[in-house]
Amino acid sequence: MKALEDLVSILSRLPGIGRKSAARIAFHILKADDQYVSLLTERINSLKTSVRFCSVCGSYTEEDPCPICSSPVRDTTLLCVVEQAQDVLTIEASREYRGVYHVLGALISPLDGIGPAALKLDRLVDRVREQRVTEVIIATNPTVEGDTTALYVKKVLDGSGARVTRLATGIPVGGDLEYADRLTLARSFRGRVDL
Amino acid sequence: MKALEDLVSILSRLPGIGRKSAARIAFHILKADDQYVSLLTERINSLKTSVRFCSVCGSYTEEDPCPICSSPVRDTTLLCVVEQAQDVLTIEASREYRGVYHVLGALISPLDGIGPAALKLDRLVDRVREQRVTEVIIATNPTVEGDTTALYVKKVLDGSGARVTRLATGIPVGGDLEYADRLTLARSFRGRVDL
Repeated sequence: MKALEDLVSILSRLPGIGRKSAARIAFHILKADDQYVSLLTERINSLKTSVRFCSVCGSYTEEDPCPICSSPVRDTTLLCVVEQAQDVLTIEASREYRGVYHVLGALISPLDGIGPAALKLDRLVDRVREQRVTEVIIATNPTVEGDTTALYVKKVLDGSGARVTRLATGIPVGGDLEYADRLTLARSFRGRVDL
Repeated sequence: MKALEDLVSILSRLPGIGRKSAARIAFHILKADDQYVSLLTERINSLKTSVRFCSVCGSYTEEDPCPICSSPVRDTTLLCVVEQAQDVLTIEASREYRGVYHVLGALISPLDGIGPAALKLDRLVDRVREQRVTEVIIATNPTVEGDTTALYVKKVLDGSGARVTRLATGIPVGGDLEYADRLTLARSFRGRVDL
């Protein structure tokens, strides 16, 4: 059946969905009532139309500026730099951070031909100055690209007066020494803290 | 963001999709190009409009009767009885069976209030007679409901002249005795075959 195969093939392009899961989902849709199906397609479409990027920080939002940037209780002198808009939601879910954000949109990756020009760095320098930011917390992933970008951002912010910090790397909470890889273990030694 | 939460909540109702997978899919859709998203919703909608049930066997089809029922090479004297339309596709994928199908639409389940009347049994008896079926292979799941239904179908077909068989149950190919449950092991003993 072409309609079924077509749907399975497009569903398998979603992250974490293989052909078997895609087929299971397609059959579920086939058996679901019309109301569910129309609600599903409606919500897929409305996601793209109602969610935009905040013109200040670059995170996902339905209103511009985003609720974080326009909140009177967030500390605008504390700026967290992330790779992508999605990272803002991940950090917000931890309820740990009370400052504002800056989305770079990419990480420096020479192998993929992505240089510093692809990052929203001019805007970052402007914001640090305008908002009188005292600390920039770089929250890019602890990967080669994330580390390179962090060092570059630090260099760009040299002389801005803001303290530049980086999220701690180490063994995850609830993790096991036995399963930590060599690099993570090495980093957690170097970053050891006083008790 | 309401649009995002709404989509995540409807996606988590899909089989095998928890909240984390749903969020990952929603972000993927948010980042995907418009062409992918419109193709996705289009295919979801067209699945429901183009796939129907075959009026002869009850399986999913885009034309009526389905390609299996209208095929000149399938053996119409061999009839495989399955619970649901999806089972036809599962069996077809094994490329083992060359007969035709009959979808019951349900299994007898007194606990769920499903009696024999909910099953398409009159049609089955008619087809066995009209098509001069020589063997009815019952391929309902090896569960309480599937076994009960199999026994009921056998009773209904008593005197029809057709041989009534049931798919073998036992240890799955590639499986391990150690991980087979007690009932499966017991059944595979009872169903042992000569070498």
